[in-house]
Amino acid sequence: MSYTIDRSFPGTTLAEIDSRTRAALAGQGFGVLTEINVKETLKAKLDVDVPGYVILGACKPAMAHQAMGVEPRVGAMLPCNVILREVDDGIEVSAIDPVASMQAIDNVQLHEVAGQVRDMLRKAVEAI
Amino acid sequence: MSYTIDRSFPGTTLAEIDSRTRAALAGQGFGVLTEINVKETLKAKLDVDVPGYVILGACKPAMAHQAMGVEPRVGAMLPCNVILREVDDGIEVSAIDPVASMQAIDNVQLHEVAGQVRDMLRKAVEAI
Repeated sequence: MSYTIDRSFPGTTLAEIDSRTRAALAGQGFGVLTEINVKETLKAKLDVDVPGYVILGACKPAMAHQAMGVEPRVGAMLPCNVILREVDDGIEVSAIDPVASMQAIDNVQLHEVAGQVRDMLRKAVEAI
Repeated sequence: MSYTIDRSFPGTTLAEIDSRTRAALAGQGFGVLTEINVKETLKAKLDVDVPGYVILGACKPAMAHQAMGVEPRVGAMLPCNVILREVDDGIEVSAIDPVASMQAIDNVQLHEVAGQVRDMLRKAVEAI
């Protein structure tokens, strides 16, 4: 079972795909609430060099509210991350599949919400 | 299977437990890279009132680097969240159990790293 929704963008830069990803997420109602520049963080903390890697924390407030209503601790798995990675020939985008990540939570109502969010994230990735 | 490591703090406030949690995380080498004030976000975006709820994104850079080395897309499940929630008689802390959340990832080496991180998060929660 794949735990991410992936798409490759050959011949692009991280800056370009970052901008296009945020626009595509906004088109599905997701705001970006958190951002981690992994490359800069690992350089600063460990003095190691890794390819460009950004973690965007995407949240659609109405869906988060609905999920927390049926599963109060689900915030431990929120927001839904979308990662942007430099690969050999461009950028790869991987959005978390919340159905996969939340399979450890025994809650059918939550799984229904997660399925809806997965569909929205898939549409956002298609729209990048 | 529980997907969080939980502890209750009756008679405390969110501000107090926020401070104690950050100190306990630091004691295990975790920095807090992201923070979402869920209560404020839902009020601003949806005009709904919910009890105090904060999501802290905790990261131990050496472990994150190790995890990404064996599973490049694992950033889709990072950082490790620790949530602080106002409940009836105080505050409840729930740290994600990375072994549970990463069970959808078919990678034995990653599961070993996740197990080590779980132990560190458990110690941090015990130290709050």
